[in-house]
This record gives sequence, C-alpha cells and structure tokens, in this order.
Amino acid sequence: LTAPPTISALGERQLVERLKSRFGPDPDFVEIGIGDDAAVVEGVRGESLVVTTDSLVEGVHFARKWTSLAAVGHKALAVNLSDIAAMGARPRFALLSLALPAELLVSEFDELIDGFATLATRTGTTLVGGNLTRSPGPIIVDVTVGGAGHRRKLLRRTGARPGDRLFVTGLVGGAGAGLEMLEQGLERNGMDPDALDCLRAIERPEPRLRLGSIVGRSRAAAAAIDLSDGLADAAVRLAEAAGLGVAIDGASVPVHPGARTWWSSRGGDPVAAALASGEDYELAFAVRPRLRRRFLAAAARCSELRVTDIGEFTRDAGFWCVTGGARAPIGPSFQHF
Amino acid sequence: LTAPPTISALGERQLVERLKSRFGPDPDFVEIGIGDDAAVVEGVRGESLVVTTDSLVEGVHFARKWTSLAAVGHKALAVNLSDIAAMGARPRFALLSLALPAELLVSEFDELIDGFATLATRTGTTLVGGNLTRSPGPIIVDVTVGGAGHRRKLLRRTGARPGDRLFVTGLVGGAGAGLEMLEQGLERNGMDPDALDCLRAIERPEPRLRLGSIVGRSRAAAAAIDLSDGLADAAVRLAEAAGLGVAIDGASVPVHPGARTWWSSRGGDPVAAALASGEDYELAFAVRPRLRRRFLAAAARCSELRVTDIGEFTRDAGFWCVTGGARAPIGPSFQHF
Repeated sequence: LTAPPTISALGERQLVERLKSRFGPDPDFVEIGIGDDAAVVEGVRGESLVVTTDSLVEGVHFARKWTSLAAVGHKALAVNLSDIAAMGARPRFALLSLALPAELLVSEFDELIDGFATLATRTGTTLVGGNLTRSPGPIIVDVTVGGAGHRRKLLRRTGARPGDRLFVTGLVGGAGAGLEMLEQGLERNGMDPDALDCLRAIERPEPRLRLGSIVGRSRAAAAAIDLSDGLADAAVRLAEAAGLGVAIDGASVPVHPGARTWWSSRGGDPVAAALASGEDYELAFAVRPRLRRRFLAAAARCSELRVTDIGEFTRDAGFWCVTGGARAPIGPSFQHF
Repeated sequence: LTAPPTISALGERQLVERLKSRFGPDPDFVEIGIGDDAAVVEGVRGESLVVTTDSLVEGVHFARKWTSLAAVGHKALAVNLSDIAAMGARPRFALLSLALPAELLVSEFDELIDGFATLATRTGTTLVGGNLTRSPGPIIVDVTVGGAGHRRKLLRRTGARPGDRLFVTGLVGGAGAGLEMLEQGLERNGMDPDALDCLRAIERPEPRLRLGSIVGRSRAAAAAIDLSDGLADAAVRLAEAAGLGVAIDGASVPVHPGARTWWSSRGGDPVAAALASGEDYELAFAVRPRLRRRFLAAAARCSELRVTDIGEFTRDAGFWCVTGGARAPIGPSFQHF
C-alpha cells in the first residue's frame, strides 16, 4: 500500500508540464506561451485590450469540505470571464497563479486544473502563463484574463441617464441560497432540481459572455456591470457612477425558484434576500427607453437566457426597492476584510 | 488612547480609493482604469503584448519580522518587471491582487502600496486594476504586468547555439547571502556596506529593464532569462531550451563581495553558493561570438551595470562549472512545494 503522491514530490517543473499537457496547441495569436519569462500575445488590430484579475481564497470564498476542486478551478476562471462579459468584450487569454499547500495530492491538482481547463476551452480562453508557489495554508487561485473589444462598443459602468431602464439577465438569489445550503451541509442526494440549481449557481457560475458581447456590439446598452456583489450592489453602483438614484420594482425581480422556496420556508423575504445576496454573476444593464427594443432584440439572440426589466434610474439620488406602495432602501454591499 | 485602525474598519471601497489616490492620473493609453469591471488598455501599433504574473506569499517568500511591507510591495512588482526585462520588453501596466488579513493596519496597507507605487512610478508602470480580498492568514501579493515589445526583438529563452557565450549582468549571490543574514536575525546597525547591499539585493531587487530593452532592440543576444531561481538554474534552462550543455568558468563568476565574505567566513565555497542561490533578478544572455562586440556596446549604454562573460554553450549536453582543471556538475533548481 502506498500513499497517493503529493505535489511536493513532483515539484514545480513537472507540475507545469502536467498543466501544459492538459491544454491543446496554442492558437496563432499566442507568439510565446507557457515556459518563457513572460507570455507574448499579438494584439487585435483596432481593438483594445480588456484585462481583469480576481482570486478565490480557501476559507474565504470556498471550503474544501463543501466544494470540489474542479468547481474551484471553474469558478476562479468564471468570475474573471464575468468581468469580461460585463465589458461586452470577448476573452482571449488567461494567466493562472496558484499558491498551493505542499500536501495537496497530485490528483487534487489535476482536478483543479481540469475545472479551469474545461471552461477555458469552452470559452476560447487560452492559458498563456502563470505561476506556481507553495502556500503555508490556504489554496489561493488568482486568475488574470485578457480580452478584446472595440473601444466604442465596450460597456462601461458609467453612462446611465435618468429614465433609463435597469435590466438583469437570468435569475438572481440562486447563488446566495446555494451558499447557505452548502454552509448548512445539505445532502445533495434527493435534492429537488431547483435546489440543485442553486448549488450549481454558487459553484459553477456561467459567465454571460455571449450576451455581453452581443449587447456590446449592438450598442443598445448605456452601461453594464456584473452581479458579483449582488443585484442591489450592482444597481447602486451603476446609479452612483452616473450620479443618479435607482428604483427597483420588487415584484419584477426574477428570483430563482429554488432560492424563493429556500428563503420562504425560513420565513424570509425572498426578494430582499435575492437583492442582497452576491455571486450570481449575471449582468445588469442601463438601457435608454428609445433603445429598449434594440436591446431586447439583441438579447433575444441569446434565446437560452432571459432578460428582465426590473426598474429605472432616477434623478433623485436615493436607492430603493419599491413593492406595492412601500419602498425599502437598498445599499451597496460593504465588503468586510 | 485608541487602537490604530485596521483595514477591516475601512472596507474594500475605501481601500480602493486610498490606493487610487496614491497614483497620478492615468496616461492616455489607459482607456478605462481602476473602478470598472475590467481595465481597458490601448495596444501599441506593431508591437506585441508581453504579460507575466508572479506572487509573494508571507511565510514562503517573506517574513514580516524580517522585512518591511514597503519592501514587499516593491519586490512583488520588481519580480514581474524582471520577467519583462528578460524579454527585452518595456512595462506599461500592472494589476495588483491582494489577499490581506483583516487585522492588517491601515498604515501597513499604505506602506505596502507605497513600496509598489514608488517602483511603478519610477519604471513607468501604470496600475490599471486589481483585486482586494480577505486572507484567512498570510499576506499574498499577486501582480500581473503587461508590457510591449516588437515581436522580432523580444528575447526568448530558446535560441542559444553551441559556441555562444553566456553573459550575466551585475553581481550574483548577494540576494542568497542577504536571505541567510535575514534568517539569522543579523542586526542592521553597524553592518558593513557590502553586507547591507546583500540585504538590498534580497529585499529591493532592481529589475534590469533598461539593459534588457537596449539589448533586445540591438538584437545582439540570441536568448535571455532572468535569475529568479539562481545563475546555475538560468544557465541550465537556456541550455536545455536549445538542447545544449553549458560550461561556466567558475573564476569569472561575479560574486557579490558581501556574499563572498559571508560564505567564506562560514567555510563555504562562494562561487558554488552564488551559482546555487536564487533571487538575484539579474539577467543572463546567450550571445553569438560574432555579435559579442555589438552586445558589449549595447550593454555599455547602461554604464552603471556591468556585464560579465562567464561561460559557453556546448554541443555536449552536460551542465558544468569549471574551476582550474576541475569541473563540478550544476543543475536546475528543484522547487519544492
């Protein structure tokens, strides 16, 4: 009987080789890929470089007892791709920086890489470089993604005007409810499909690349942001960036059915919970009333993904969720350290 | 009496504002800087994008009891700039991804940023984005740098031929000796200047951007690499990348005088120690014999930095350090996790 090998037995070079072998040959725009001091990437003529970085830290963003390392690898890339989608850009390359404990098993390393690589391949994102280092404790996955887009068609955060409509893609609250299910150690066996989809939302968010890119090219949206910190936070930030207020129509918020059931059964208000909970990685857009039809036509080209008109940007600088006659204040999320 | 404020009291948004205020206005090539979902950077017409990422992890790469956070901020950027230098490229922008413990003081945060910002400003590197997250323990500073260079003038790792000379910049071994001094808790007060310079080498490495860029443009070098993992490792990797061997002339290795004194006084072989020790962040080049004069003329334009001819690439695939009549094998460093 032998113990399964740890990454410390392999060392950095063999791990890099293992990682490279998981990916196919580089596309032509990659002049120098993994293995030199730096990667070299050809630009796209007439387009700008869109770059973003985001990390997942064990004990902060995930716990290994709840989540597979394949899901961690997927999500570390997905949260970056969501930022690229929110700019209306398309991804081209990624850098993967890993800090890993020495006792991690090679099979666990492979699992992490596999989650990353599967999403990278599916979204046309080429891994061109990165870094491997030892961690004294937590697994840290830091990803940088570079994308491209036409300067005038990129979706900024600023740009909303009073009277613009607020749209959101997909369903919200699923990831927040899914996180609570994970934290409470719910058994997946026998879970109903809506609840399972909440787990998928928190573990395997799907970046809205196609919709972001189509909306960007259509020039139908005045501003965009992703929902990493929740719908309320996203709406407030779009409003703040333009010096405006925002009023969300509570009844129209597309709450995930699994989240609705989860929070209702606990005596909570599903809409308030969905507004406040983060990590849905949907997109929010500000759309001029006169471009509403163009926006919906563009969005309809992504037939699998719904978009919902949920409110309006206002000259009045307050941030509200209006339900029936009552209005409740909403705020940006405060990220504690 | 009040306790000094921690970063958890400020939260992410205020910290980002604090960070932004440390930098001047963005140059024109930055279309969208800090504060949107992603940064947008204009490409350089006719040049390629050169990207690299590297991280410093507390407890692995530094200990706070030895080193100031200003030095950590400096070094986290410097190690990336060294990779850009080794490509013969020039830096343009950086992304800074920080995982920080909640109890970090705001003054310590400022110190870390200051070390980063001072080097960024001096080297013309614009911070365009990043990420702040909580760490359950260690400080982790993950930096990505994007640079630019003409495709045909970039310095790859492959390209050495038998008979090419091996050159190295500056002095070697200083960082390795400096690390030992730090680990042994040496008192800085009253240290002699050579020993102090060993501490500077490990704490505040100076990326060889100017020399790398001049040599790249001159097309006098066939290949290049930086010395992050030591001179022996760099020489072996340049040789391996070309399917060659390498013979270093031990007597010609420019050992840092502080390191020579340090290792000699401990009964060690200074040349062997300098070859094996890492983190000098100098550059190594393979140079065709017929381009030797052109290389030296290019290097002479960086009059403050010496370059030394220390050996030769060989058809014979061994890796050796030759001293007098004796030869000792050298190997690539094995990075344990």
